[in-house]
Amino acid sequence: MSVSMKGNVIVGQSGGPTAVINSSLAGVYKTAMDRGANKVYGMLHGVQGLLEERVVDLADHIKSDLDIDLLKRTPSSFLGSCRYKLPDIKDGTELYDKIFKILEKLEIEYFFYIGGNDSMDTIKKLSDYALLNGSQIRFMGVPKTIDNDLAVTDHTPGFGSAAKYIASITKEVIRDGLVYDQEQVTLLEIMGRNAGWLTGAAALAAGEDCEGPDMLFLPEITFDVDGFMKKVTDLQKVKKSVVVAISEGVKVADGRYVCELTDNIDYVDAFGHKQLTGTSRYLAQRISREMGCKTRAIEFNSLQRCASHIVGRVDITEAFQVGGAAVKAAFEGETGKMIILKRVSDDPYICVTDIYDVHKIANVEKKVPREWINEDGDYVTQEFVNYVRPLIQAELTPIMVDGLPRHLRLEDV
Amino acid sequence: MSVSMKGNVIVGQSGGPTAVINSSLAGVYKTAMDRGANKVYGMLHGVQGLLEERVVDLADHIKSDLDIDLLKRTPSSFLGSCRYKLPDIKDGTELYDKIFKILEKLEIEYFFYIGGNDSMDTIKKLSDYALLNGSQIRFMGVPKTIDNDLAVTDHTPGFGSAAKYIASITKEVIRDGLVYDQEQVTLLEIMGRNAGWLTGAAALAAGEDCEGPDMLFLPEITFDVDGFMKKVTDLQKVKKSVVVAISEGVKVADGRYVCELTDNIDYVDAFGHKQLTGTSRYLAQRISREMGCKTRAIEFNSLQRCASHIVGRVDITEAFQVGGAAVKAAFEGETGKMIILKRVSDDPYICVTDIYDVHKIANVEKKVPREWINEDGDYVTQEFVNYVRPLIQAELTPIMVDGLPRHLRLEDV
Repeated sequence: MSVSMKGNVIVGQSGGPTAVINSSLAGVYKTAMDRGANKVYGMLHGVQGLLEERVVDLADHIKSDLDIDLLKRTPSSFLGSCRYKLPDIKDGTELYDKIFKILEKLEIEYFFYIGGNDSMDTIKKLSDYALLNGSQIRFMGVPKTIDNDLAVTDHTPGFGSAAKYIASITKEVIRDGLVYDQEQVTLLEIMGRNAGWLTGAAALAAGEDCEGPDMLFLPEITFDVDGFMKKVTDLQKVKKSVVVAISEGVKVADGRYVCELTDNIDYVDAFGHKQLTGTSRYLAQRISREMGCKTRAIEFNSLQRCASHIVGRVDITEAFQVGGAAVKAAFEGETGKMIILKRVSDDPYICVTDIYDVHKIANVEKKVPREWINEDGDYVTQEFVNYVRPLIQAELTPIMVDGLPRHLRLEDV
Repeated sequence: MSVSMKGNVIVGQSGGPTAVINSSLAGVYKTAMDRGANKVYGMLHGVQGLLEERVVDLADHIKSDLDIDLLKRTPSSFLGSCRYKLPDIKDGTELYDKIFKILEKLEIEYFFYIGGNDSMDTIKKLSDYALLNGSQIRFMGVPKTIDNDLAVTDHTPGFGSAAKYIASITKEVIRDGLVYDQEQVTLLEIMGRNAGWLTGAAALAAGEDCEGPDMLFLPEITFDVDGFMKKVTDLQKVKKSVVVAISEGVKVADGRYVCELTDNIDYVDAFGHKQLTGTSRYLAQRISREMGCKTRAIEFNSLQRCASHIVGRVDITEAFQVGGAAVKAAFEGETGKMIILKRVSDDPYICVTDIYDVHKIANVEKKVPREWINEDGDYVTQEFVNYVRPLIQAELTPIMVDGLPRHLRLEDV
C-alpha cells in the first residue's frame, strides 16, 4: 500500500458502550495512522466534549501494539461517551457554527463517530451542514450497539459479544436453577428497549448440554401479564425449575411498560428514553404472591455491554474492520455514510463491509421480524438462532495480569 | 501406587454451589476410582435425596477424561444440592436409622459430603451416630463455599473463583461508570450474609489500570445509613462516578438488615436464613431522592456462585485436591474429619492439605478480622488484599463448543 500524507482525523464514541466499541476505535486509529493521517484526535465524551474542546491526541495514549490489543479488550468507551442530540439545522446553526470552528482550529479533515441510531443522527446532521456550507470535512459513521437495532446493516458490532455473554450466563443460570429440588421460577431481565435481539439470544443457550430457557418475551410482542402468569403456572406443573428471559422493554396492551406497573421509573435521558428497570422484579413478586414458589429476578444489567472478559472474536474483529473501513472510505472521499456489514453466507459464515447513506439509517430501528418469533409470541424460531449463531463464534482471550483482565485506561487529561 | 480393592463410596453436594464444587466431585470420583473403589455412588440433592434412595452410579455419568474436564468446568452442583438439617441425635434416631439402612443396602464404606458450615454439621452428626452404633462407615467433609467462612481452613475452595469473578466485573463496572460525563453512584451488591470476604474481594479491582471501588461495606461492621449518605455526598464533590461495594448482609445498629428497611423479604430457608435482596436498591433510592443524581444498583446475584466461564486455576485445582485428599484420608481410616487448606507461604504461594476434626468446624463462622478492615470501616487493608490475591491467580479456560462454554449435564435419572 502506498501511503500519501493525509490531514488530521478526529474520532468520537457516542451512546451506550459495547464490549467491543474500543476495537472500533483501535480500527479507526490504526488504519488512519497506517494510511498516513497527520494526527488522530479523540474527542472526550463525543460531541458534548468536543463543544468544550476536550480532545486528546491519541498517539499520546496508544503507544504500542500492546496498547492496541489492550484497547480492544477494554470495556466501556475509552474516550467517554454522551447522549447528545444536535438540534435540527433549520432551528438555528449556532451550535454547528461552533463545532465547525473547533474542527477547523484543529485542522480536521475526517470525522468519525462510533455509535448507534442516535449517533448516526449526529453524522447525518453534521454532513448535511458541511454540504450546505461548503466544508470539505468528511463525516463517517461507524456502527455499534449491543441492541442490534440499526437498519440496513446485517448486524451491528457489539451485538455478537453481548449475545455470547447472555447465552453463556443463561446456561450457567439454568444449571444453577436446578440445584435445589424445589419449585422455582427464575426471571432473566435483558436489555433492548424496543428490539428483542438480545432477549432472543438467550435461546442460543439451548443445546446438547442445556435445556435452554423455557420462554422468551420480546418487546416486539404485546405482553399479557395474565397470559404470562398462566403459562408459568402450566409450565411448573411439568418442571420444577422454570427459566424465563424477558426484555426490559416489554409493554402491556395500553402501551405502558411492565416496569411502569411498579414505581421504579426515575430517570429519562436526553433523547427522552426512559431508563427501564424492575420488569423482572414486578413479575417475580406476582409469581411469588400468586403461585407461592421461590422466585429469582436476575437483571443482567450493564454487564451486557461491558463484559469484556468474554467477548467474541468474530465480533471484535468485525468491530475493528468497520472502523478501518470507515477510514478507508473517508480517505477515498466518502462522506455522510455509515459502514454496514453484508452477510454473504451463513455457513460458512462470510461477511463483508460496504458503505451506505446515513440518512437512511439514522433514527430507524430494526426490530426482530415477526416471522422470527413463534406464533405464541413466547420464543424465537430456528431462523433467528441461525442468524445469531455465527456472530457469537470464537473468543478473544483476555490479557490476564495478576489474576485479572487487563484494560487500557485513558490517563488523566 | 499399589491399589488394593476398596468397597463402595458415596458422595453428595450440599448447600449453595460454587463455580468449582464439581471439581471437588471430580477429585472424589477420580481419586476413589484410581485407588480401587468398587463403586462410586452420587446422592442426588444430598442427604435429602439419599433419604429417598435417589442415587446414581457415577461411572454411568462420568465416562472419560474429557467428562472429568467438562465436570470441572460445569456450574451449579452436578448432583443437585439441598439445605437439609439433620435433627440432634438426642432428639431421636429414626432418620439416622433410615440413612444407615440405605447406606448398608448400598454397601457403602466411605461417605463424602462437599459443603460449607451446615454440611459439616451433617458430617459431624453422621460420624457421631456411626461411632455410637459401631458402624464402620467413614464420613469425611470436603470444604466448599464462596463465602470463605469456614473455620480452621486457610480458605475454602470456591472463594477464589468468586473473588476473581467479583474483582473482574468490578473493574468492568468501574470503567462503565465513567462512560458519561455525569454524576453517578453505582452500588454493587455482593453475597456473604455474615462474612465480608466476597465484598472485600472487590478491592482487588484496584491496580495500575483501575481506580478500584471507592468504598466497601462489610457485614462485620454495623452499617450507619446516615453516615453512608454523608460519605457518598462528600465523595461526589471530588469525583463524578462513585462506585461502592456493599454486602447483602449489612445491618443497622438495631440489628435489622438494610434490606429489611424495605419490604422485600419473602423467603426463609430450612436453616432459618433469610434470603436477602434489596440492600443496593434501597440505598440507590435514597441517594437518588436525596442527592438527585443517577444511580445504578447492580446485584451480582447467583452469577457469583455459578460463573464457571471465568474460574481460577489455583481455586479449581485446590477444589480437586481437597476431594482427592478426603478420599485418601478416609481410605486410610479417618472419619469425622474435614480436609483443610494450610497456607505455607504467601509469596511464592504454597498451600497444602491437612485433616481436621469436623466438630471444631461445623456451625462456626469465620469472619473478616477487624484488623483487616480500616478504622473508618469502609475499606479493607493491604493485608486483606495480600491474603486474597494468590487465590485468584491463573485461569482454567472454558471448553468452548459452537461459541459457548460446554458443561457436563447429569442425564435424566
